[in-house]
Amino acid sequence: MSKQETIQCAVFGASGYSGVELLWLLHNHPVFDVTHAFSSSAREKAEPISALYPQLAGRCEQILQPWHSDLLPQLAQQVRVVFLALPHEASAELAPKLIAAGLVVFDLSGAFRLGDPLQHQAAYGFAQPKLSNDVPYGLAEFTQLKGDEPLVAVPGCYPTAAGLALRPVLALLAAHTTPIVNAVSGVSGAGRKAALHTSFCEVSLQAYGVAEHRHQPEMAQTIGRDVIFVPHLGNFKRGILATIYAQLAEQVSSDMVAEAFAACYAEQPFVRLVANPPKLQQVVGTPCCDIYFKVHGNQLILSVAIDNLLKGAAAQALQLANQYVGLPPTTGLTPSPGAVV
Amino acid sequence: MSKQETIQCAVFGASGYSGVELLWLLHNHPVFDVTHAFSSSAREKAEPISALYPQLAGRCEQILQPWHSDLLPQLAQQVRVVFLALPHEASAELAPKLIAAGLVVFDLSGAFRLGDPLQHQAAYGFAQPKLSNDVPYGLAEFTQLKGDEPLVAVPGCYPTAAGLALRPVLALLAAHTTPIVNAVSGVSGAGRKAALHTSFCEVSLQAYGVAEHRHQPEMAQTIGRDVIFVPHLGNFKRGILATIYAQLAEQVSSDMVAEAFAACYAEQPFVRLVANPPKLQQVVGTPCCDIYFKVHGNQLILSVAIDNLLKGAAAQALQLANQYVGLPPTTGLTPSPGAVV
Amino acid sequence: MSKQETIQCAVFGASGYSGVELLWLLHNHPVFDVTHAFSSSAREKAEPISALYPQLAGRCEQILQPWHSDLLPQLAQQVRVVFLALPHEASAELAPKLIAAGLVVFDLSGAFRLGDPLQHQAAYGFAQPKLSNDVPYGLAEFTQLKGDEPLVAVPGCYPTAAGLALRPVLALLAAHTTPIVNAVSGVSGAGRKAALHTSFCEVSLQAYGVAEHRHQPEMAQTIGRDVIFVPHLGNFKRGILATIYAQLAEQVSSDMVAEAFAACYAEQPFVRLVANPPKLQQVVGTPCCDIYFKVHGNQLILSVAIDNLLKGAAAQALQLANQYVGLPPTTGLTPSPGAVV
Amino acid sequence: MSKQETIQCAVFGASGYSGVELLWLLHNHPVFDVTHAFSSSAREKAEPISALYPQLAGRCEQILQPWHSDLLPQLAQQVRVVFLALPHEASAELAPKLIAAGLVVFDLSGAFRLGDPLQHQAAYGFAQPKLSNDVPYGLAEFTQLKGDEPLVAVPGCYPTAAGLALRPVLALLAAHTTPIVNAVSGVSGAGRKAALHTSFCEVSLQAYGVAEHRHQPEMAQTIGRDVIFVPHLGNFKRGILATIYAQLAEQVSSDMVAEAFAACYAEQPFVRLVANPPKLQQVVGTPCCDIYFKVHGNQLILSVAIDNLLKGAAAQALQLANQYVGLPPTTGLTPSPGAVV
Repeated sequence: MSKQETIQCAVFGASGYSGVELLWLLHNHPVFDVTHAFSSSAREKAEPISALYPQLAGRCEQILQPWHSDLLPQLAQQVRVVFLALPHEASAELAPKLIAAGLVVFDLSGAFRLGDPLQHQAAYGFAQPKLSNDVPYGLAEFTQLKGDEPLVAVPGCYPTAAGLALRPVLALLAAHTTPIVNAVSGVSGAGRKAALHTSFCEVSLQAYGVAEHRHQPEMAQTIGRDVIFVPHLGNFKRGILATIYAQLAEQVSSDMVAEAFAACYAEQPFVRLVANPPKLQQVVGTPCCDIYFKVHGNQLILSVAIDNLLKGAAAQALQLANQYVGLPPTTGLTPSPGAVV
Repeated sequence: MSKQETIQCAVFGASGYSGVELLWLLHNHPVFDVTHAFSSSAREKAEPISALYPQLAGRCEQILQPWHSDLLPQLAQQVRVVFLALPHEASAELAPKLIAAGLVVFDLSGAFRLGDPLQHQAAYGFAQPKLSNDVPYGLAEFTQLKGDEPLVAVPGCYPTAAGLALRPVLALLAAHTTPIVNAVSGVSGAGRKAALHTSFCEVSLQAYGVAEHRHQPEMAQTIGRDVIFVPHLGNFKRGILATIYAQLAEQVSSDMVAEAFAACYAEQPFVRLVANPPKLQQVVGTPCCDIYFKVHGNQLILSVAIDNLLKGAAAQALQLANQYVGLPPTTGLTPSPGAVV
Repeated sequence: MSKQETIQCAVFGASGYSGVELLWLLHNHPVFDVTHAFSSSAREKAEPISALYPQLAGRCEQILQPWHSDLLPQLAQQVRVVFLALPHEASAELAPKLIAAGLVVFDLSGAFRLGDPLQHQAAYGFAQPKLSNDVPYGLAEFTQLKGDEPLVAVPGCYPTAAGLALRPVLALLAAHTTPIVNAVSGVSGAGRKAALHTSFCEVSLQAYGVAEHRHQPEMAQTIGRDVIFVPHLGNFKRGILATIYAQLAEQVSSDMVAEAFAACYAEQPFVRLVANPPKLQQVVGTPCCDIYFKVHGNQLILSVAIDNLLKGAAAQALQLANQYVGLPPTTGLTPSPGAVV
Repeated sequence: MSKQETIQCAVFGASGYSGVELLWLLHNHPVFDVTHAFSSSAREKAEPISALYPQLAGRCEQILQPWHSDLLPQLAQQVRVVFLALPHEASAELAPKLIAAGLVVFDLSGAFRLGDPLQHQAAYGFAQPKLSNDVPYGLAEFTQLKGDEPLVAVPGCYPTAAGLALRPVLALLAAHTTPIVNAVSGVSGAGRKAALHTSFCEVSLQAYGVAEHRHQPEMAQTIGRDVIFVPHLGNFKRGILATIYAQLAEQVSSDMVAEAFAACYAEQPFVRLVANPPKLQQVVGTPCCDIYFKVHGNQLILSVAIDNLLKGAAAQALQLANQYVGLPPTTGLTPSPGAVV
């Protein structure tokens, strides 16, 4: 596809937090054009996105439609690319139909991320649909899309943070070490729905899914070795801060770690190697991933921050879609006016 | 009743935010003894309060039981006083039965606060039950309970703040003025239940129920004149801060206002007249109501702060119950170790 | 000036919260080009803005320089427009020198907002500098700049909110009414400096400067009548929510109020008339002002929300500068990708 | 000392966050009686504690005095026990003088915690005063005070959390493992003073002092082996949540870990072994330490929560003082009415 022509696309699950971020990015994108946006639930009536998110009033008047499967033929004629920001099982059900209709699918759910169907079944509680093609796992800085894949799996938020921090230094780690990923996520990671544990008065810093979160096998797959993962819910809206611990092989110096990161990310506009441990605040609202490291004896300590809804979801999906259609990865992602503080 | 003997009581709706505060106060009270605690919903199984509020583990092991009406005869034998921290309609339905069984009821809901059945119907959407006795409205500092009332209506949180601020100065207001009550409440005021508008990512300072909140007629009843009331939801858990505007009659000086407050509250342990506008933080966790005033020309400006769950609910209920049984109002309410900052 | 050519400009006080927002807006602007940025304090060394705001690393590498008056001749040669985001007294001292050097000044401080020097002295505690020209007060939606004014006073945050809400309906108010402005501001309004009352553990909803805030005379000037103003500090970073009360003249209906607003703002891209009371969250990060109204008897109640750092400071300054140089007001201000939720 | 008699005591640094919590606990204590409270700074005038903490108005009218060394003889006559909630160096300077005057000192600073003077010098940047007696390190659940020690070092907040979590299971850890302590603290841990990094708009989840915090050697001393410690600052006022990782020796089962904890804490009223990872909210305002564990393969994962100002400072100091004078450890610490939610 050429850069000049407009590419029609659709967003499913646009009423959710990741979905609306993606909708807004696409709305301001010079090439992609959102012609259809569907809400997460079939029961809802058509309504403007600004009815759910009044911040978009006058700035994005996209209509959210309810999805019915009989809309598929028309959709297949009108759009080329579909973004799915749906619950895992809904994605698993819908994606094969979209692919069969000739659409290109970027799936933000976990339905197609795990290569091992048994792991998938264990993690998600339903069988992963079988597709005729391999599904690329789109950790954007480590993926080369050819532009003819029918489906791209957009990584989970925690595995994006852990993968970006660990992949550059895998060769420097001790053979026996099992990295530990201690991560804290904002509440938006739980999605936009009423639930007691995410109600305002109930949220307080707390570990959950200790060593059994479904992002653990995804992380292990991404870095190619086992990992211990403890997620936490924090009292903030957006962002993930992961503190990662791993042992280095003998003779690995701090300079060698610095070089490994620099070699990996020198040309990557969204990964920033930072001299101080990052604050969440410095990545929230941005497509950036900030990585800090410290070598303490033979221990490597990494502190990595992303916005879970952007680099951990919507912005990464768009970064992949840019790559897919031959655009620079930053198209529509930077510079991004908006709030600094 | 004498101070020495233990008074058995029950709490309905002890799983909610006001209910658990009341349960905890009663648990530490020298005279009242909670022998029964019921959760808000009939569907729940018996479980310790600490299953819902782990902060109480090892400190209060009260069991929450589901309520069934066939427990009533036994309850009537075992307890003397019942506190209802239930939804309005549930209170309306239950209270007459408890009274008929000879129990004394302190009702924290709005079911019996309004003296005018038509106003009640309009505000709450159901008919107020008719009782043979008048129901005292228990704004604690302005109520004298005789100790033989079958039912006491505990005021709402907003009317408590507005009533305590305005009642001492009513005689000083201009005849024509309609006081304006602009108040901000923490999210706990909406109760402990999952709802989208109180989920963590959705809460943000916002007015609601503008000039049509059901606490408006209650306020007007409390101060004996019309009032304009605009509540707001704020991004904090507990507390109400009300800023109140009213015009003073001619020739009313700041000193006269100060004297009116002092005369009213000199002997009241829980109302503090403060020299600076109160922070919410200084009343949260306390049974206190802090009142600041400023006279600006003929305008009176009041800033008043309470903890909505304590002075605006549980602590006021206990203050009334103390008075009812002849105890000092502060019994079990002060001093209260716990966090300062 | 034509739209095509680049306009060099400078930002003073770029290290502060309003200043950095302005710097970031200008950095992404198609016409203005920031060639100089000065920090608030003369003692600091030159350093990149990203040293203070790491969120800007790799996105805006502007260097903050310390200002010395001997830089003036060079500055006057290199830039045409200067934005001052300085403390009031620093602005008062610097602006006349910049004007004398032929520069155009947009001043975000309070140094030149009040038309009455006596009021200024009382509010700010220092004498307002005398200038040979009248200084336009730039409430953007109500100002027509000709493009030859040497200095424009950018309104304060609270008066912007109050002015935008009240000016369209002034003719509908009762002759005798004194509007009441009850407003809550985020902590960024206090600026970027260490102070006990804005330290994390001390912030809690609280009124301050009751009926004696220096924005009161500015508001009164803006709406042309007296006003009662009570500001509050809230526990959030950004945004102002003002709830405003005024009495309507007889026979004024809700429809008439709606028409007045529509007539005033139909063509204004940044003022949104909203059907529900606005949440702060829906304007934070945007240049928008959201206005809700309700007529209750003869009482008009307004709820208005802005981002104090954008519409209340940086975005309004840029909106004025756009107008000044003949650009559409929205240039560089919308659409603005960035976070939605 | 017997339980009946009142014990006069003094608090230094009572204006700080730990100090005021201690003052409030002592104020409500049945045996200790605060006769003197000194603020942290010599420059301040005498003022009631409620001038700094208006929440205490009418509930604790203790006067904060400025300290001068010529008050020492009088102090030594009037009090028996002194609590120091002072900066480290101020404690180091004052404590020896108090001891020399015959007073018993509970020091909440780090001045006397480390047994190795070289480690102390490296961690704190000044020489530790030499005392003639060994100073007991008062991790309360693991300390037996005899009641004749002149000085007790109250542990730091992070080491309290880590020590209580790890000490019961030390014998079960693999010989080679270096435990990792990943902890997040509320902002009150930084004390009550104006500083940019703790100002409201600047606080955001962030690691700091990575592997070089001065509590690291204290933790290592407490558990008797090296430890990797990464503290983080979180966007909340109070509390520490530590997630701890260590490898178990071979053949150690989850049951064995459970037994080790039960054996250690069965009789300890303030340590709660909990079945779910604790929320910070469930310990804030309490003297409790909540510990959760999970065995994952040979990895032990602990999640432990305390209130940094109570169990991590003031409540632990009082727990030790109770023990010192022969009172039950819970005296004046439980039950503690106050807010639940």
